[in-house]
Amino acid sequence: MNTAIEKNRGFASDNYAGAHSEIIEAIQNVNHAHDGAYGNDQNTQSAKELFKHHFGANTEAYFVYNGTAANVLGLQSITNSFDSIICAETAHINVDECGAPERFTGCKLITVHSPNGKITIDTIKPHIYGFGDPHHSQPRVISITQPTELGTLYTEDEIKTLSNYAHENNMYLHLDGARLSNAAASFNKNFKEITFDLGVDVLSFGGTKNGLMFGEAIVFRDKSLTTNFDYIRKQGMQLASKMRFISAQFEALLSNDLWIKNARHANKMARILSEEVSKMEEVKITQNVEANGVFAIIPEHSILDLQDKYSFYVWDEQSLEVRWMCSFDTTEEDVRNFVSLLKKSLKDN
Amino acid sequence: MNTAIEKNRGFASDNYAGAHSEIIEAIQNVNHAHDGAYGNDQNTQSAKELFKHHFGANTEAYFVYNGTAANVLGLQSITNSFDSIICAETAHINVDECGAPERFTGCKLITVHSPNGKITIDTIKPHIYGFGDPHHSQPRVISITQPTELGTLYTEDEIKTLSNYAHENNMYLHLDGARLSNAAASFNKNFKEITFDLGVDVLSFGGTKNGLMFGEAIVFRDKSLTTNFDYIRKQGMQLASKMRFISAQFEALLSNDLWIKNARHANKMARILSEEVSKMEEVKITQNVEANGVFAIIPEHSILDLQDKYSFYVWDEQSLEVRWMCSFDTTEEDVRNFVSLLKKSLKDN
Amino acid sequence: MNTAIEKNRGFASDNYAGAHSEIIEAIQNVNHAHDGAYGNDQNTQSAKELFKHHFGANTEAYFVYNGTAANVLGLQSITNSFDSIICAETAHINVDECGAPERFTGCKLITVHSPNGKITIDTIKPHIYGFGDPHHSQPRVISITQPTELGTLYTEDEIKTLSNYAHENNMYLHLDGARLSNAAASFNKNFKEITFDLGVDVLSFGGTKNGLMFGEAIVFRDKSLTTNFDYIRKQGMQLASKMRFISAQFEALLSNDLWIKNARHANKMARILSEEVSKMEEVKITQNVEANGVFAIIPEHSILDLQDKYSFYVWDEQSLEVRWMCSFDTTEEDVRNFVSLLKKSLKDN
Amino acid sequence: MNTAIEKNRGFASDNYAGAHSEIIEAIQNVNHAHDGAYGNDQNTQSAKELFKHHFGANTEAYFVYNGTAANVLGLQSITNSFDSIICAETAHINVDECGAPERFTGCKLITVHSPNGKITIDTIKPHIYGFGDPHHSQPRVISITQPTELGTLYTEDEIKTLSNYAHENNMYLHLDGARLSNAAASFNKNFKEITFDLGVDVLSFGGTKNGLMFGEAIVFRDKSLTTNFDYIRKQGMQLASKMRFISAQFEALLSNDLWIKNARHANKMARILSEEVSKMEEVKITQNVEANGVFAIIPEHSILDLQDKYSFYVWDEQSLEVRWMCSFDTTEEDVRNFVSLLKKSLKDN
Repeated sequence: MNTAIEKNRGFASDNYAGAHSEIIEAIQNVNHAHDGAYGNDQNTQSAKELFKHHFGANTEAYFVYNGTAANVLGLQSITNSFDSIICAETAHINVDECGAPERFTGCKLITVHSPNGKITIDTIKPHIYGFGDPHHSQPRVISITQPTELGTLYTEDEIKTLSNYAHENNMYLHLDGARLSNAAASFNKNFKEITFDLGVDVLSFGGTKNGLMFGEAIVFRDKSLTTNFDYIRKQGMQLASKMRFISAQFEALLSNDLWIKNARHANKMARILSEEVSKMEEVKITQNVEANGVFAIIPEHSILDLQDKYSFYVWDEQSLEVRWMCSFDTTEEDVRNFVSLLKKSLKDN
Repeated sequence: MNTAIEKNRGFASDNYAGAHSEIIEAIQNVNHAHDGAYGNDQNTQSAKELFKHHFGANTEAYFVYNGTAANVLGLQSITNSFDSIICAETAHINVDECGAPERFTGCKLITVHSPNGKITIDTIKPHIYGFGDPHHSQPRVISITQPTELGTLYTEDEIKTLSNYAHENNMYLHLDGARLSNAAASFNKNFKEITFDLGVDVLSFGGTKNGLMFGEAIVFRDKSLTTNFDYIRKQGMQLASKMRFISAQFEALLSNDLWIKNARHANKMARILSEEVSKMEEVKITQNVEANGVFAIIPEHSILDLQDKYSFYVWDEQSLEVRWMCSFDTTEEDVRNFVSLLKKSLKDN
Repeated sequence: MNTAIEKNRGFASDNYAGAHSEIIEAIQNVNHAHDGAYGNDQNTQSAKELFKHHFGANTEAYFVYNGTAANVLGLQSITNSFDSIICAETAHINVDECGAPERFTGCKLITVHSPNGKITIDTIKPHIYGFGDPHHSQPRVISITQPTELGTLYTEDEIKTLSNYAHENNMYLHLDGARLSNAAASFNKNFKEITFDLGVDVLSFGGTKNGLMFGEAIVFRDKSLTTNFDYIRKQGMQLASKMRFISAQFEALLSNDLWIKNARHANKMARILSEEVSKMEEVKITQNVEANGVFAIIPEHSILDLQDKYSFYVWDEQSLEVRWMCSFDTTEEDVRNFVSLLKKSLKDN
Repeated sequence: MNTAIEKNRGFASDNYAGAHSEIIEAIQNVNHAHDGAYGNDQNTQSAKELFKHHFGANTEAYFVYNGTAANVLGLQSITNSFDSIICAETAHINVDECGAPERFTGCKLITVHSPNGKITIDTIKPHIYGFGDPHHSQPRVISITQPTELGTLYTEDEIKTLSNYAHENNMYLHLDGARLSNAAASFNKNFKEITFDLGVDVLSFGGTKNGLMFGEAIVFRDKSLTTNFDYIRKQGMQLASKMRFISAQFEALLSNDLWIKNARHANKMARILSEEVSKMEEVKITQNVEANGVFAIIPEHSILDLQDKYSFYVWDEQSLEVRWMCSFDTTEEDVRNFVSLLKKSLKDN
């Protein structure tokens, strides 16, 4: 992409955005004198408490640098190398992490077809067998993404069904919540209600895509799952020395309503965008717009016209399906300008 | 340690400090609109160029989150799993990374006794054998730290001797430069002169301990060593999505003289501290003070008296050797107050 | 299964058989005095030469203990940890090796649906993309099994097509030949013609399932692929100290026609078995019988009746598809008795 | 070495020997019809029972192919990747396994100087610290070799002291018993008395060096340590399909007195050898001869003279210390001829 475009607000990814001003402010506020390294500081304690407030008193949160690490180290903490992890073929852990989950957990990833980004009991069941057979990777984790990589949402019942099934089979339910705030905002529920109350065992909580500069959290259902996590994180190269600068960001995100304001806004921008483009008959919305992403098929020439001004990804080269992600800093004007441009492009051809 | 103390400036570690104000400013300055993720942004390109300026036109720099990752991924890029890495028994890669180097490279670490933090041909030579013998981990890397974990410096000749020996044996010389700026400041030389000109092949360049909020670099002697590094970094869970926030810090550090100002200052504080305490006969300085750390043996009661007001580590529980690290933000007043307190404690007992 | 049954010759697996008498004899013949350990012996040299004779003058063979190791170490020698390996969902490396390929190579396994055990360009093509994208495991190996786990054979053209495709994409073609002798016997061709002449890069050559006591070989197309293999095998825990006892078995297998006699016989037994049972209308042969395995669907009560006397596996619990493997020591009488028993069982119900 | 020599009985290693005739016989005896694969056979059950008989009713034995695997998989079963294993610098796991322990367990190996092959509380204590510190590999295993790689024996008290220390620190005691039979023969005690009764937690039991063709066992103090071992062994590429051929060898070794006859004989040959050569003043025996190995320093020309007829290793190139291993099949005549040759060589020069 050309650099000039990238410096505008486009629709490529919510991690193309910068950091929210309150986040920057929070960072400045903890930039005092000296403080204990590696999480031995007040901000980290306080941020961890905030996670308990949002996710439940028995939960435990740990901070890492990025989403790949949050997924990999969370999975490592609940698996042995001879286990398997089942997920959607579109899952970030399968498609976008360069094999980090396999390499660092040693586990087999089993993937199932998931046209809308979601897995179901029916799709995964044929793969969950071989318990006790040493020739067979032991099924140990069902991993879902909420919202999915396709901008859709699992219903609460769908998650409950999967967690019940997991637990009946002595497995865990892992949730990649890189955009979990967008899910909570969409459901208008708190984090506990949409995760641990539904039987999730461990989750990645995304900060970067909701306005943080960097920083993600791994949240465990219960302290009992964290026995070795301090070592796993350190050996996993994810223990931040000046951790207060991550923790302060989470404090800012979670102590007031910043997390939900940002997420609601991004969701709303996606909704407006989808409503506007769905009025054009040349545009086919391909996925339910339930969070902050819009997936659509548009004519090829319009892709080129739009990419001339705004960056975004072609999701599927075959079908020319594109992905438009909205971010905490996407403005309604951004959306309207983008829509106008698309309209013009469609008309011109 | 008690929290109140930690919020003062102590002598525990240069990573107890916050970020330099110019670093914070640089971060704010890149917090504009959208930009390419994962290093596809102007600041990253520009920061990489700055590294070429400082280290040599043929070198290549990559950014990661922290020092453990810089060491591990740098080492991984020049080893096979069946190789060995030789280092001082005091090396950070041996003592402070929870086995990350072994786990992620697969390599054997061979350690040698190093009372002053330095290894020599004599100490390592007995361990460098077995080339071509499949029963034996293949010696592949000599890893040194500059300045060492004990605040001492390898002379340029010492490094050259080690690099020659390494290359004669078809091995690499790796340098852990978590505090490399302090070495350059002490030598009053540029980075190229004290690393690649002396035969270093790959190095970790520390930012965090010299005033960055977070962020380290891996610098390779030559592009030829980087063939797979993009994959190694991504699979190594160290590819930052909003990378501009690391890159901007390095721009600020390296584009003006911030790096050397910070390092010189920290070195100077250590020198003053060591000069002052060496006047007291109850204090024994145990290592040459050549960078920003002071190692000394003091009476036990004084350790307790000092730790009541300032945080620092007892380096060796047996000999009661303590470590006092100075930082870019240590003030001369901090040092003088600390010295006074020590004087008082020694007199009172 | 009950022990009494297992001590008969059943149809469970060709690794339920013992060792061929010529193999035992060969072992006795090398049980003389002392000999160099770890392959530094005459028998190993001679066995390696025999492999060159059968597979081509430029090929290189290495011996390991078992088939899992042959696959894993062969794959490791041609991959980096950030690569991916594509194979049939029924592949032994995917289903029967407890995740060893992932754990030891670090690679991602990508599996495709393969009702007849075979993969095609059409099925794998959608998964082969992302070259140069560090977020994506790099497609590096296409792995096929010949004969397949379903007793079918790739035609020579099919293999050639796959190898061409692999090489065009800078990938390797790996072949799991746990039963490669059965393929050669079926084609009535030599090993070179059905492997390296078709573009295979590295293969596992099975001994155990064709009458050896233990021992498999990894055969590389060319010496250039073996640079690190001595270390990979040793670190992979597969370097046999008294290697002459493996090598002598391969000498016996390959220096006269034992390999083809055994394989032809097993194939013939499968053919007879399949011809006989296909006359019964209650029996549905589900796969082409092209090597030494017969896959069929029979009534449930007949499964139980037969398993009362002969061991064999139900391949698919849903469809009641069973697998009957013939071995070098399966007799025509075994087959006829088995067929009679099935006939009787079908009539009785 | 030249091939002609190797086919004599030399003193290079007890794994240069072939297999004992009773072992070959045992193999032939189980070469009947079909039997369950992967250990589902009567011989494996029976061999496992024999291990219980020798090592204790609560112990559990598992069979693998070789000694490297026995050590690595035994260690893996009691460690996490962030643990450390302390051993003698001369330990096989440190020197002769090409880094397999590090690669497959992920653990750090900490080595201590051990001039007689033995470690002591004093030598290891300085390395056993950092419990609970996530920066530090967690000390988890003390690994000893009995007899040591230098032919010496830990006394029972020495082992007990180490196991007590291990258990007080929540660590395990691992024993590499590649030549454990030689230790038992030397002590004239049973296996239980010299291992689990002294607090050993898991051990490698060597077969190959005491007359087996191939095959080693991992013996666990208690079933509780074996929870995942079936998966660890399979994923570790060490599950033998025709396992009865390993098991039958162990049955032969352990069901009559073959193990002790072989070991006593080898020990006796070493004793005679050492007694004879110690009469020569030019020869300096460097280690106590307590098992089946003799370590000595002899003039360089005599090394060459002897190696002209007998293979053996120079253990230390600097001091010209040589190692002479005796085996179950070393004859008294071999020893006397060897001694004569040495005498002659010494006189001639």
